[in-house]
This record gives sequence, structure tokens and C-alpha cells, in this order.
Amino acid sequence: MRTEARKIADSPLEWVSGSGDSSGIILSSRVRLARNLEDHIFPWRASREEMLACEERIRSRILSENSLRSFRVFEIDQLDPLARGVMIERHLISPSLAKGGPGRGTAVDDRGIVSILVNEEDHLRIQAFLGGLRLHEAWRVARQIDQILEDLVYAFDSRIGFLTTCPTNIGTGLRASVMIHLPALSVLRKVGKVASDCGRIGLTVRGMFGEGSDSAGSLFQVSNQVTLGQTEEELIEKVSGVAAGLVRQEQAARDRLLSEKRSGLEDKAWRAWGLLRFSRNMGIREALELVSLARMGSETGVLPKVPSSTWNLLLMDIQKAHIQARAESDLTPEELDSTRSGILREAFGPFHQTGQLS
Amino acid sequence: MRTEARKIADSPLEWVSGSGDSSGIILSSRVRLARNLEDHIFPWRASREEMLACEERIRSRILSENSLRSFRVFEIDQLDPLARGVMIERHLISPSLAKGGPGRGTAVDDRGIVSILVNEEDHLRIQAFLGGLRLHEAWRVARQIDQILEDLVYAFDSRIGFLTTCPTNIGTGLRASVMIHLPALSVLRKVGKVASDCGRIGLTVRGMFGEGSDSAGSLFQVSNQVTLGQTEEELIEKVSGVAAGLVRQEQAARDRLLSEKRSGLEDKAWRAWGLLRFSRNMGIREALELVSLARMGSETGVLPKVPSSTWNLLLMDIQKAHIQARAESDLTPEELDSTRSGILREAFGPFHQTGQLS
Repeated sequence: MRTEARKIADSPLEWVSGSGDSSGIILSSRVRLARNLEDHIFPWRASREEMLACEERIRSRILSENSLRSFRVFEIDQLDPLARGVMIERHLISPSLAKGGPGRGTAVDDRGIVSILVNEEDHLRIQAFLGGLRLHEAWRVARQIDQILEDLVYAFDSRIGFLTTCPTNIGTGLRASVMIHLPALSVLRKVGKVASDCGRIGLTVRGMFGEGSDSAGSLFQVSNQVTLGQTEEELIEKVSGVAAGLVRQEQAARDRLLSEKRSGLEDKAWRAWGLLRFSRNMGIREALELVSLARMGSETGVLPKVPSSTWNLLLMDIQKAHIQARAESDLTPEELDSTRSGILREAFGPFHQTGQLS
Repeated sequence: MRTEARKIADSPLEWVSGSGDSSGIILSSRVRLARNLEDHIFPWRASREEMLACEERIRSRILSENSLRSFRVFEIDQLDPLARGVMIERHLISPSLAKGGPGRGTAVDDRGIVSILVNEEDHLRIQAFLGGLRLHEAWRVARQIDQILEDLVYAFDSRIGFLTTCPTNIGTGLRASVMIHLPALSVLRKVGKVASDCGRIGLTVRGMFGEGSDSAGSLFQVSNQVTLGQTEEELIEKVSGVAAGLVRQEQAARDRLLSEKRSGLEDKAWRAWGLLRFSRNMGIREALELVSLARMGSETGVLPKVPSSTWNLLLMDIQKAHIQARAESDLTPEELDSTRSGILREAFGPFHQTGQLS
């Protein structure tokens, strides 16, 4: 049973490689398109048969398309809870889709760039993830998939655009988002301000782990709130521009910490390093926090250099379903914390420094 | 000015070597004798001239005695505050004596076993420190000095014994104490119970750093409360017996932690190790706490083996006056914390372990 979960956990994700601009701070860029099929009742009021029929059409289209031959199609109900958990942690499916039910599924490409959610809130959610600040490129990738699947005939109104289950997605059906790491702005307690500034121009800042500006690990998702009244390119450009601005703000905050509070920053970073390299039990929240501080330390030259890909990979590898998927048998909460600790110790082993005064 | 302080900080202390029985848990044994000279008014009501005259007699006796030729005699008022601070941290003088004044002094032997306090609360306080549980031996050493100095003719009453300024010291004038490290009993919150048990049989348990059972670094002093009504040998035997009992209790508590809470103990110990080896700023309280946990970890085989002498030496080297004495110039509180951190990192460098899973 664990085999499938482990296979998914071990499959690649393009963004993890740390490619793309500003990839130390912008971990990933995502473009998601919400689409529905004209000939089918929308999922929220569709019958079981309707759901299955719709899924069947979508699956056939994907499987018959030569350019999508690298996609694997999953039926959620055929996946055990562990495999679904791993998919959620990799953002390949949403917690809502993970609940399963008739006709619910997903299709994932073998490079870990695209996932197509089937019969979640809408018939189709096409999402493309890339590393760094690459929203324009992610939009091109999503658009390609979109152009293939539009053979299925989308529910579309020439005046308002694509029709969706929730009015907030109507129009372009596009949500552009970046996953951004803001440890220095968090230390300086500036994230609340950043979030309200973003709110005023129609963007949302949300913690990746936990809520609002109190996100564990200083990881945030910045995305557009509305999808209507602007073109796809305008939306992409807006989120991209704000993301680039946040990168500059975070860099300035790091420079400020380095110049004005260097000793405190060094202490925080080295303590995080010491705990990551030596602890024997660690909960996810503390692990995210320490990884965040150590990553900032490494990127600012205070700690040994560790590649972005190592930091990115850890964000998934230390999560519950990923750990369980790779274990021989079900781990107790204590075993989970001790295994997480072991993963962290091993991750930093190759970048070992004694911490001696030079 | 710093030269004298540094010289004292660098001078040996026999107990630091970690010799003697149970020296992992009983850091040192001390016997202290309170004595006064029959021909002189007791210090609390003596005039300046009286104090100076008394000190002069004591000093001449020490300096004229061949068997005490290794002693260095200090006049407190001639020592700068830093040197006095170092002496307090080494327990060579009391904070009360450190205040100085006419005729106040101390004499210290070159092996760091004996210090003779002059004109503190009593004319003479003879103290002998040895490593491990060696109260009988410390008593013999103190007795030898006592027999030399009794040429000065002590204030003595054949019915009640030696006369002292404070009634609690009357009789034998003897206080036997051990400095004991009880981290496992502290973790298990048993120190309060231990202290009240000791109280019932006339012994006092006091934190070495801080008060009562909340001592930083789990270091306690166990000593006899009364000095009257029992012979010196009986008092020594009693404190010795209780100290040996506490060693067994602490050992049992460590065994219990190892068998019942091993994972928690390992985590605590390795975290302490990681922080000691990597932090950049550390206050004294946290340092004492982490040194205590790491020492227990090392002694129970969870952490790399570190000799007792390293742990013992650190207890002085990380303290304020010792750090200042060895600095080139006065350190700010921030510099003090960062220097302390550096001392700790260097101390554990030679015992380096990567913390990798084996």
C-alpha cells in the first residue's frame, strides 16, 4: 500500500531544483486555470453519473493526446490516504479534492510541472508550477494544456469569460501565485504591513503553513484575488511585479539585519543550524522555523552554503505524509518526530562546519 | 590592572582536575573552619587599628611558617574589582570579604586547595577544597592549617568549643559541604524533596547559582547547618554519608531517564550540545543550563565523552569576571555574551561529533 505513496513522494517537482530568477526567495511560481465543460453540470450539483461521465471525457482527452503522453492519471478513490497526503504536501491536489468521490481525479506530468485536477470545485483546474519567479513561463505552460483541453468545449460567456463554480474565479479563471520566503521581513515584523499593502491592490498574502502573517517557516503565498476585468497577461504582470518588489524588500531587510543586527542574526542562524544538526526529536512547526532561519543564514553567507534544492526538498521531506510514506510501517507521533530529526541531521551532514572561531 | 585578575583566573584549583570519588556528580568537597584570636576583638566590632593589628599577626604567622611557604597573601584593598570578582567565582573569597576594608585579606596555596580568609565575619576562615567526595581528606588538610595557626591562640571555651561571631558557627566552627550536580533529579523535579529530606536531618541544600531548588545548572551545595553538639568527625561523616546517598539517587534518576525517557533525554542532551557548539551569543544562565544537560549527556554515554576537568573548568571560565579578566579591554554585555559563546564553542571543538545517524 505504501508503494504508491512512496513513488509519488519520490517523483520530481520542477520547482524544487531551485531554477529561475530569485529562486532563493521566490521558491515557486504557479498559474492555475479554472475551467468547466459546457456539456456537463458543474460539480457542486452534479450526480454521481454526471461526475463519472465528465471525468471519463476528460481522461480520454488526456490519454489520447500525444503531447500529454507523459501524464499519469490518478483516480482519487483508488489512492490510499497516505498517497493522497503526499499529493497534498506536494500541492499536486487540494485537500478538498483529496476527499475523493465519484469522478474525482488528477493527472500529473512526469517532470512535476503540471497537475490537472478533475471534478474538484470546477471540472478542471489546470495548474503549472515552476521554480523561481517565472509566472509568465508558468502561464505559457498552463495555456498550452488549456488549448489542448478546450477541445472538450468550455463553459464560456463572450461577455464575462470563463464560467466557474465560484464567482471569484469567473472571467479569466486565472490565479497566479508565488510561494515566497520572507524570513527577514518576519524577523522585523513587517509581514503584516506587506500583506495589507498587497490587499489594497487586490492581492492576497497567505501563510503556506498556518494563517496570515503568523506562518510557520516564514513561507507565504501571494496571489491575485480577482480574476475578472483584467487580461491574463495583466494579472500575471501584476503578481509578478509585486513578487519582484517583495524580493527587493526582503533583500533590503536582510541587508538591514546584516548591518544593524548582525550579531543577533548570526546567533539565530547558528543556533538553528546547531539544533537542526543535533536534535533527536522535532515537530514540524519548529523544523519549519529552524529551516527558515538556517536558510536565511546560508543565503546571507553567515552559514555554510547549502543549495536551494536541498532547502526546497526538505520542505516536503519533513512533512508527515512524506515521512510516513518512506517508513517501513506506521510511525507513532514520537517516531515521526524522531525520524524528522534524522532527516534534518542527514540533510546538513554534507555541509558540515565545526562552528569553531576562525 | 588586568594582569593580577588574569593570573588568579589562570591559577590552578585542585578540584577542577576531577579527581576523587564520584567526581562526575560531586564536583568538590569543602571543609571550612571558623576561628578567632583570643587577644583580639571580633571583626564585627573591631576598630580599624584592631583589624590591622590582627591581620598583621595572622600574616606574619603564615609567612614565617615553612610548611605554608607556597601561600600567596593578598590584601583585599590592594586588589582591583576584577581580581576580587575572579576570586569570588573561584570561591577563594566570599562576596562579603570582597568588599574589602582595613585588615581584610586572604592567603591561597599554589595548588588551589586551601584559602584562609582573614577578618571576614571571623578573624580566620580556613577552607580546604578537594575534587570529588573527599570530605575526610579535606578535613585533614584544614586541620593541618588549623594546627599551625592555633599558635595564635584561639578564642576557645572548654565547655562549648571554638567561639565565633555568629552563634551558628560556635562549637566546632566546622562547615562541611559538597558541590553536587543533580541534573537528572532536577529534570524529574525531585530536588525539592531532596532538600526537605536533608533539612530534617540538619543539612542545608542551596543552589550554587540562584536560590533553592531552582538553581541554574542544577548545581547545589549541601552542608551541615549546626556545628555544635557533634564532633568534627561526626559532622564530616554525616555530610559525607548524605552526599554519597545523593550520588546514588542521582545515578538512579539517570538510569530511570535512560530506560524510561531515553528519547527525551537524548534530544535534550543533543540540543544542548548543538547550541553549545554553534551559538554566537549566550547568557550565563542559559550556558549553565546547557552545560549541565550536556554534561549529563556525556556522562550517561549519550554524547561524546568529555573529561570532568573540561566541564569543571567551564563553570569558572564562562563567568563574567573570568571572561573580563582574560579580555584585552572592558567588554560590553553583548561582547561578554559573544565571548562566552566562543569559549563554549572552543571547549567542545576537540570532542566533535557530526551528530549523524550511525
